[in-house]
Amino acid sequence: MAKINVSEVEGDIDYREEMEKFGIEDIDKFLSQMKDLPVMYRRGLVFGHRDFEKIFEAIHLKKRFATLTGANPSSSLHIGHKLFLDQALFFQSRGADVFIPISDDESYVFKKTESLEKATQNAMEKVIPDIIACGFQRKNTNIFISTKTARVYELAVKLSTKATFSTMKAIFGFDNETNPGAIFYGVTQSSHILFPQLEEHGGPRPVVVPIGVDQDPYMRLVRDIAQKVGMVKPSSTYHKFLPGLLGGKMSSSKPETCILLTDAPDVARRKIMRAFSGGGATLQEHREKGGNPDVDVAYQYLFYIFEESDKKIGEIREQFKNGSMTSGEIKDYLAKKVERFLKSYQKRRVKAVKQVDKFLIR
Amino acid sequence: MAKINVSEVEGDIDYREEMEKFGIEDIDKFLSQMKDLPVMYRRGLVFGHRDFEKIFEAIHLKKRFATLTGANPSSSLHIGHKLFLDQALFFQSRGADVFIPISDDESYVFKKTESLEKATQNAMEKVIPDIIACGFQRKNTNIFISTKTARVYELAVKLSTKATFSTMKAIFGFDNETNPGAIFYGVTQSSHILFPQLEEHGGPRPVVVPIGVDQDPYMRLVRDIAQKVGMVKPSSTYHKFLPGLLGGKMSSSKPETCILLTDAPDVARRKIMRAFSGGGATLQEHREKGGNPDVDVAYQYLFYIFEESDKKIGEIREQFKNGSMTSGEIKDYLAKKVERFLKSYQKRRVKAVKQVDKFLIR
Repeated sequence: MAKINVSEVEGDIDYREEMEKFGIEDIDKFLSQMKDLPVMYRRGLVFGHRDFEKIFEAIHLKKRFATLTGANPSSSLHIGHKLFLDQALFFQSRGADVFIPISDDESYVFKKTESLEKATQNAMEKVIPDIIACGFQRKNTNIFISTKTARVYELAVKLSTKATFSTMKAIFGFDNETNPGAIFYGVTQSSHILFPQLEEHGGPRPVVVPIGVDQDPYMRLVRDIAQKVGMVKPSSTYHKFLPGLLGGKMSSSKPETCILLTDAPDVARRKIMRAFSGGGATLQEHREKGGNPDVDVAYQYLFYIFEESDKKIGEIREQFKNGSMTSGEIKDYLAKKVERFLKSYQKRRVKAVKQVDKFLIR
Repeated sequence: MAKINVSEVEGDIDYREEMEKFGIEDIDKFLSQMKDLPVMYRRGLVFGHRDFEKIFEAIHLKKRFATLTGANPSSSLHIGHKLFLDQALFFQSRGADVFIPISDDESYVFKKTESLEKATQNAMEKVIPDIIACGFQRKNTNIFISTKTARVYELAVKLSTKATFSTMKAIFGFDNETNPGAIFYGVTQSSHILFPQLEEHGGPRPVVVPIGVDQDPYMRLVRDIAQKVGMVKPSSTYHKFLPGLLGGKMSSSKPETCILLTDAPDVARRKIMRAFSGGGATLQEHREKGGNPDVDVAYQYLFYIFEESDKKIGEIREQFKNGSMTSGEIKDYLAKKVERFLKSYQKRRVKAVKQVDKFLIR
């Protein structure tokens, strides 16, 4: 089974090793030349890239470019998914057209939903409102459902002759028992990524796809295919995975591991207060020896997402390390930020439910 | 490579053996109860069936049913293709809704056309007008292009989880070098066949697909899949292959082997006059020993398609066998019929070119 979701990556990852293995480059040289970056870029959550030159140039010369991030409609979105969308939002703010394929086909052929109808329904009722509420501009955001958009299959057919079952097997780990839908999904995914380069969307252009390193094999496939069909090889950026609340991975199917974008603020607070902590075993021990911010989940959420102020995050780190701030206090501080975020997000989401048709393209 | 086209079947076929091997039944018991049958049914061109009871019943009880026959847009249609369409026309005259998928995807993934665009263009400019001109009623004829109709991929995805790569390999002869588009086409073809049973077309109902025995493996696949998704297992009828003009198979890419529906009448006549003959080696020998109508191509075209009158075809057979009618005279007689047919067909085709959009569904 293909590892397609962030939530399926387990264990600790040595990002430096991954970068060397796959030829992913450090993104700092570009980021250091860009202003007003969101915290995820300023603080190293996004660490690597492939072919980002094209995107950097497009931003600076105000040339046409696009960004793309997909969503799987098997469940509601959580904070981990939002990291992808936030990157798309960032590129939109720098001039990109945004494309968001909703892969109901993937959800069904890999048996994450019991029926294709259920996947499509989830897309319409849950995932697309979840996405819109993140704050995408109506004007240059294109959301499309994979099985409802004829161009997806048409382009996938076109791309399909540029790969073989051998290639797909090596990348996705297919075998004789794999269903033909799953086998074909490999090229459908390439079709999603090259979709922004269709003639009706203005033809070939740079496209940047924010991904996790686990998704890099699919990037290498689509880059290989792109050049065979006369399209621009898509660029990618790589981000670290945020740990789940309990220290392991986030999973929508285990609600206690993650903050869903549709969690009631008090539910989110309760989850945060139970999060894995880097504090001392007892209050006394904590006051004496201090805590470890690098394994404290609440601290990491603040550092990578919720605390904008560099001064404030520095103070928190310091105080947690010297024991003057407790793990409970950090959690409470984070919970307040998350409650505030969810309230305003969920207000936007009420409106977003009615805007689905305006964002959908066919 | 999958054997999908009539034109790919080679050599002599023992139909009785094929029937026994695949469990295809004799269709005579149904045909003998039906009136005003076209010659192809009266004279045994259509010889077998699978599950025709449902269709026989639907015709007699005037229940909803459909017929389906596909076309591959890699080339223009010839007389051999017309045999499929004539059967669809016959079922339409008995109350069926007609569905005609144009598989531009198949054409491209099996490399019969150099590009998908070329296949789609051929469909619009050549094959669809060719089909309409056969005389389909506007009202209940639905032509659709596989990559232009979102429902095709959507249904194919739904069906795809009911098969495995093993199954597809066994039926289509795929290997590791097969491209993912070709692998998926196996289920796309099932999607075409089950398309008339979609809710938007009124839901499950009997569907009859006229095929050659070489296509039976795909029928068995789609029948198996149909029952797994709560649709009616499609029925099929089987017809013999007419020989090409030179005695081998017909192939659009070898124009001398077949009469194209777009051949100028005089071109068709010239091809017929050069057809493989069952007459004597010399006129004298023919007059003495007579000819063999069963290998005479012109005679077979008359018998199975162009000579409506049972009396007349009986006379021709007799006179050819006893040598009083020459092979040249049979060819001339056929050529006149074909010229008349092509003139009236091509008049309809001029109109058909403008009707493409009216017959297309999306």
